[in-house]
Amino acid sequence: KPLNEVLFFPSEVACVEHLLSPSAPCYCALPHGVDTSFSRLLRHVLSASSSLDLCVFAFSNTDLCRAVLSLRKRGVVIRVLSDKDYIAINGSQIGPLRKAGICVRSDGGAVYMHHKFALVDGSLLISGSLNWTLTAVQANMENLIVTMEPELVRPFVQEFNRLWELSDPA
Amino acid sequence: KPLNEVLFFPSEVACVEHLLSPSAPCYCALPHGVDTSFSRLLRHVLSASSSLDLCVFAFSNTDLCRAVLSLRKRGVVIRVLSDKDYIAINGSQIGPLRKAGICVRSDGGAVYMHHKFALVDGSLLISGSLNWTLTAVQANMENLIVTMEPELVRPFVQEFNRLWELSDPA
Ligand SMILES: [Zn+2]
Ligand SMILES: [Zn+2]
Repeated sequence: KPLNEVLFFPSEVACVEHLLSPSAPCYCALPHGVDTSFSRLLRHVLSASSSLDLCVFAFSNTDLCRAVLSLRKRGVVIRVLSDKDYIAINGSQIGPLRKAGICVRSDGGAVYMHHKFALVDGSLLISGSLNWTLTAVQANMENLIVTMEPELVRPFVQEFNRLWELSDPA
Repeated sequence: KPLNEVLFFPSEVACVEHLLSPSAPCYCALPHGVDTSFSRLLRHVLSASSSLDLCVFAFSNTDLCRAVLSLRKRGVVIRVLSDKDYIAINGSQIGPLRKAGICVRSDGGAVYMHHKFALVDGSLLISGSLNWTLTAVQANMENLIVTMEPELVRPFVQEFNRLWELSDPA
């Protein structure tokens, strides 16, 4: 039976350094060893072994940015589609991703690219109301569906590829 | 096997009067008899026979408002949770829903109630990036997952009930 999981936010706040820097012990003041909605999201993202396709309106969360950069270092092929207007906003992590050589495209139109989904290895879908921002994770009431159900994953794979072809590499 | 469907937006624009006023013929200028993402969404909402639990940040789409009002006339029990700030915004359909006697609650906090999901008869989940606005339906790039998978539906039912109890009836 394929994985089906739902994560709700705001997430409890807990340290995620063990996921992002597993070799270094952490002495920060946050609770450690606590499983939260956010740590589960990070774990799913970090589980990528071949590809990560990310289609999010807003991406400013620095922990999620570190996760994507660590995938890049491991050779995971990463494609990021984001909203043109949001990319220019203060705190956007799109700049650091591009500097690391990750392909980022944005829709050219006047409308919002309002999706918030990620595809891990083309077979795990993470989709819901949650933008990849700190506010969404720590303050808002939000949801994410995490599923490997092919009837749900396949349409998102096709839509990502369609939007990727339509979008502006600039 | 439970229903699993994905709808992408923007939707083609087509007449939906046959869904909202099935007895009256329509002579408007829009295409008729076309199945679109929006007509499929409307059909799923209108399929409610006992209850509709709706948790949306923004609700200004008048066709979706008409659908909810017609459910109300048929005796479907409707609960609406919406964002406190958005309820006050011009074009919000929360006022008309309340005037029709539908229970609307809003979160009391300073944060966003950013969900966009609906539960039809407690067994069909409609959830994604799409707010119930005209812009979301006709202009933005958006998605909705429609599923009867119990592992996905059950957590949303529990979360709706939890938020409903927490929320302000005012
Ligand atoms: Zn720590
Ligand atoms: Zn018509």
